[in-house]
Amino acid sequence: MSQTKQLLDALQWRYATKIFDVTKKIPADVWSALEKSLVLTPTSYGLQPYQFLIVQDAAKRAALLPNSWNQKQVVDCSHFVVFTARTEMTEADVDKLISRAVAIRKLPTAEALGPYRHMMLGDVVNGPRGKAAHEWASRQCYIALGNLMTCAAILGVDACPMEGINPPEYDKILGLAGSGYKTVVACALGYRSADDKYASMAKIRYETAELVKIV
Amino acid sequence: MSQTKQLLDALQWRYATKIFDVTKKIPADVWSALEKSLVLTPTSYGLQPYQFLIVQDAAKRAALLPNSWNQKQVVDCSHFVVFTARTEMTEADVDKLISRAVAIRKLPTAEALGPYRHMMLGDVVNGPRGKAAHEWASRQCYIALGNLMTCAAILGVDACPMEGINPPEYDKILGLAGSGYKTVVACALGYRSADDKYASMAKIRYETAELVKIV
Repeated sequence: MSQTKQLLDALQWRYATKIFDVTKKIPADVWSALEKSLVLTPTSYGLQPYQFLIVQDAAKRAALLPNSWNQKQVVDCSHFVVFTARTEMTEADVDKLISRAVAIRKLPTAEALGPYRHMMLGDVVNGPRGKAAHEWASRQCYIALGNLMTCAAILGVDACPMEGINPPEYDKILGLAGSGYKTVVACALGYRSADDKYASMAKIRYETAELVKIV
Repeated sequence: MSQTKQLLDALQWRYATKIFDVTKKIPADVWSALEKSLVLTPTSYGLQPYQFLIVQDAAKRAALLPNSWNQKQVVDCSHFVVFTARTEMTEADVDKLISRAVAIRKLPTAEALGPYRHMMLGDVVNGPRGKAAHEWASRQCYIALGNLMTCAAILGVDACPMEGINPPEYDKILGLAGSGYKTVVACALGYRSADDKYASMAKIRYETAELVKIV
């Protein structure tokens, strides 16, 4: 089977899973690959202004449930990922990335990255994006979410993205006060139950010509 | 090679391409698959509140260039995608999706979807998300962006996501006034040039333990 067909089949196979099979857990090697895919997500300037919380504690999951429109996926899935984004962007965030770049690329000094540092500071810290830094960081979480859902589908793992959550309550339950991060969106991962009638329903998408325009 | 390794290799292989090979165009069948992957992007409620503009007109690309921090990828890439999101969400947007669902799933009447319609109206039209509908729709664009970059990598197509653009100027050049859509973000796609020294540089990511926390 061609790689193209394999990819499109995976995207067709996936759907927002309503009922997870509570007995099926994602094997460690598959989860490790999904974790790596999250880490490899591309972000603006490479700033990675997020943290991914994998909620495995049953009591925490139970507390999140009523703050998730009671969607049972929260407690029934194998791995529950909460995407959190930086509340603001500071000079320290930029310098952390610069240090990391120097270390990984074995650059002589951070000064080599002076213009790059200056550009980032003038944009996401002190510039227009700085004023809306949490929103900007939240958008980066959505890149990670899109990437994760596609990677999961390719590896045969089911997923349910969840915007229908109460972020301030999530923040309390997950103890995020003072952490510099706030809840943005969540995604339940695992394996669909044979009882999930949504699995076999036709996907609802507009015509390609309506969504994609050549200009 | 295992599917897992193939996936991680693709994510490692990708990078934000700085120099595209202007002589290499994405073949029609590969582009068609990428277009399908965009269409198959998951969105909140399935509302697909976006349009993807593929800018192939050379004059338009030239006009976008100075509004893109003069990043040459805009004019040098094979396919240039501009992600546009709904400026607001109306009852008509919800009813359009309901009609589409009825048609695709061959439901007897739209009434079967009454509660679903009611829920969407109370959220993204008249509810909390309705007040920030463009931002909500923009986040859906970022799911599409994340999905597209991953799919491109899997198909061996290079990409450069671009937040460094001037959306209001893009809107003018692309004639979006009155269309109900506004520019959010862009992505250049094609094939890397042998001259792009960034291609071989080590990827800069924080430690997994810093980005992924088990709680």
